[in-house]
Amino acid sequence: MRKVCIVGIGQIPVQKIYQPSLRKLAAEACRLTLENTGGAPVGALYVGNMLSDELQQQKHLGALIADEAGLSGVEAFQVRAATAAGAAALRVGFLAVKSGAVETALIVGVEKMGSGLATPALAKALDSKREVSDGATLISQNARLMRLYFDTYHPPPDALAHFSVNSHDNARNNPNALFGDREYSSKDILSSRIISPPIRLLDCSPVCDGAAAVLLAPKERAYEFTNKPVEVLSSSVATDRFRMVDRLNPLSLAAAQASAERALKDAEIKRSELSLFELHDAFSIMSCLALEATGFASSGEGWRLAAEGEIRLDGRIPISTMGGLKARGHPIGATALYQACEIVLQLTGSAGPNQIPNARSALMQSIGGVASTVISHIFSI
Amino acid sequence: MRKVCIVGIGQIPVQKIYQPSLRKLAAEACRLTLENTGGAPVGALYVGNMLSDELQQQKHLGALIADEAGLSGVEAFQVRAATAAGAAALRVGFLAVKSGAVETALIVGVEKMGSGLATPALAKALDSKREVSDGATLISQNARLMRLYFDTYHPPPDALAHFSVNSHDNARNNPNALFGDREYSSKDILSSRIISPPIRLLDCSPVCDGAAAVLLAPKERAYEFTNKPVEVLSSSVATDRFRMVDRLNPLSLAAAQASAERALKDAEIKRSELSLFELHDAFSIMSCLALEATGFASSGEGWRLAAEGEIRLDGRIPISTMGGLKARGHPIGATALYQACEIVLQLTGSAGPNQIPNARSALMQSIGGVASTVISHIFSI
Repeated sequence: MRKVCIVGIGQIPVQKIYQPSLRKLAAEACRLTLENTGGAPVGALYVGNMLSDELQQQKHLGALIADEAGLSGVEAFQVRAATAAGAAALRVGFLAVKSGAVETALIVGVEKMGSGLATPALAKALDSKREVSDGATLISQNARLMRLYFDTYHPPPDALAHFSVNSHDNARNNPNALFGDREYSSKDILSSRIISPPIRLLDCSPVCDGAAAVLLAPKERAYEFTNKPVEVLSSSVATDRFRMVDRLNPLSLAAAQASAERALKDAEIKRSELSLFELHDAFSIMSCLALEATGFASSGEGWRLAAEGEIRLDGRIPISTMGGLKARGHPIGATALYQACEIVLQLTGSAGPNQIPNARSALMQSIGGVASTVISHIFSI
Repeated sequence: MRKVCIVGIGQIPVQKIYQPSLRKLAAEACRLTLENTGGAPVGALYVGNMLSDELQQQKHLGALIADEAGLSGVEAFQVRAATAAGAAALRVGFLAVKSGAVETALIVGVEKMGSGLATPALAKALDSKREVSDGATLISQNARLMRLYFDTYHPPPDALAHFSVNSHDNARNNPNALFGDREYSSKDILSSRIISPPIRLLDCSPVCDGAAAVLLAPKERAYEFTNKPVEVLSSSVATDRFRMVDRLNPLSLAAAQASAERALKDAEIKRSELSLFELHDAFSIMSCLALEATGFASSGEGWRLAAEGEIRLDGRIPISTMGGLKARGHPIGATALYQACEIVLQLTGSAGPNQIPNARSALMQSIGGVASTVISHIFSI
């Protein structure tokens, strides 16, 4: 089967609220991506988005964005897996190019979360009949996980604060980050206001707007479009029991474990060979659990990697190297595409002050809902 | 590249309103499909649906339905292209199996349209800023096309009525059809009440509930699961200018033409070799325009195929052979999967009284919005 490479990337800076429309943000990310490839032809456009049904009253984003981007005519549709929508769209692009049915695939993620209307729409990632009807939201479910973690393993009170500190530190050198201008200590994190106990404001990624894109092409043609292609070695999607209460051990994130293991196997590389891990730090507890589920730490020990500096740029497994969801921002459907763009910057030695020396391969993980769906991709130079 | 076959199908009867939940309808279609294959393993689950965000408050259908169907763990996500969602999901299944990344893919389409809330949600297939804001709905846009057709070509007043007559005739032998018990003359069609002039009630497909599924497997393994595999020869998606007013000739359905031409080319068969055409007769005008766009009739002449009986089971190009969207029903996200199931019945000689003699190959077409996205698949035995 064909091998697949990223041959172009495009990001617009994440902002709290953008004036331009959803379609214009997406088209701009597409334009930037194609500009970077010398105007490569587009064989298909796959769109990642979660909230446009409610927030923009649009349910037909493939054709809508294709038109706005000047690509009308092209194959186009939308892919979704709740908060992992962007990664699901990337997965489809990977399958399309790998299959030979599509020559080049542009994957764009976009979200305009704007007002407070985002929270009820986000909760539709959960079970409306048996979770949301009891008052559950994505925040309250993550709070349950965080409480369970502390009750089970009794880590020190500041155990998770170091994840937010690291993300904010790394965002300061990312011109596309929402919070590029802030520096926090773990004390700051722990003194921010409580949102849903024990989750505090600075444990949470922000509501924001953004769009990012990548262009995929077959490896044998990659140098037509770039002199630094990044190969997508593998792509893997796994699900778990939909509701947390149905899981034997909600702290084990079975889907994160399964999709990472499968991705590593398919990529034929070892976990220890990974240079960095762009994980889904929508909440600080998720960073901790993802490190444990993917085998970088044993159960109950993930926080130590943060406390001991092993997740920093010069640590054993750098995470959120350009700010992560926490500080770059988490415009839902766009997030995985920002992650992919940042990984391309790292693997091509273009990450500026945040460059991981000799970065060769990277794991990217995207989480849908409370890890009901987890999507892992592995990239290498 | 690998060849891909349908090795199992499952349909639940379309009903006006089902009591069971969306997830249960989808799981039942999955169960029926797997039962028909002797319990084949499922490598991935792709879901087609359009309206669950608004009507069921659910945005995470892949993992939700996987869990309900007893498949939790498996790769699962949702694919959408407005009213062509089911066909887009089938397209992803085709790419996944063809690529070799997935061994077997279960594609399920499901929709519970229930109450009158469906209409505003359906309108999100259009441009909310520049169409819906002016009062446009899918029905009013199809009415514009129908009016334009009559104003341009001046066919006889009953020109399009024969499409509905044919669909209802064929539904009478389909146990899964919503309207299996009715017979209409063209006079009945023309005397039904006006919905959006000149569209009458019996020009429209109904609001309804349903779920259908197919299982895809590589051709070389197809006989493990069935003794009558049906090959998916090709799959093609095309888009058009998003808004009708931006199109040079709105009656030409450029995306229908492009996707059918590409599908025929990829399948390496001629239009004249097709035994039947399951088209997207959401409105009678769409049947007519689809026949013209795909080259079965020249512009302004599509209605003649209906008036002259050429679309009937014994005609030159039978369409809507089991009732079509008009009379089998059009539970949006499920519709393309019903079409695919019906094609499998035809190509395996299992279509009962509606069997097309010696059916060898079939075209299936699914339309998103007012043909902003059109998806064509070609199948053969």
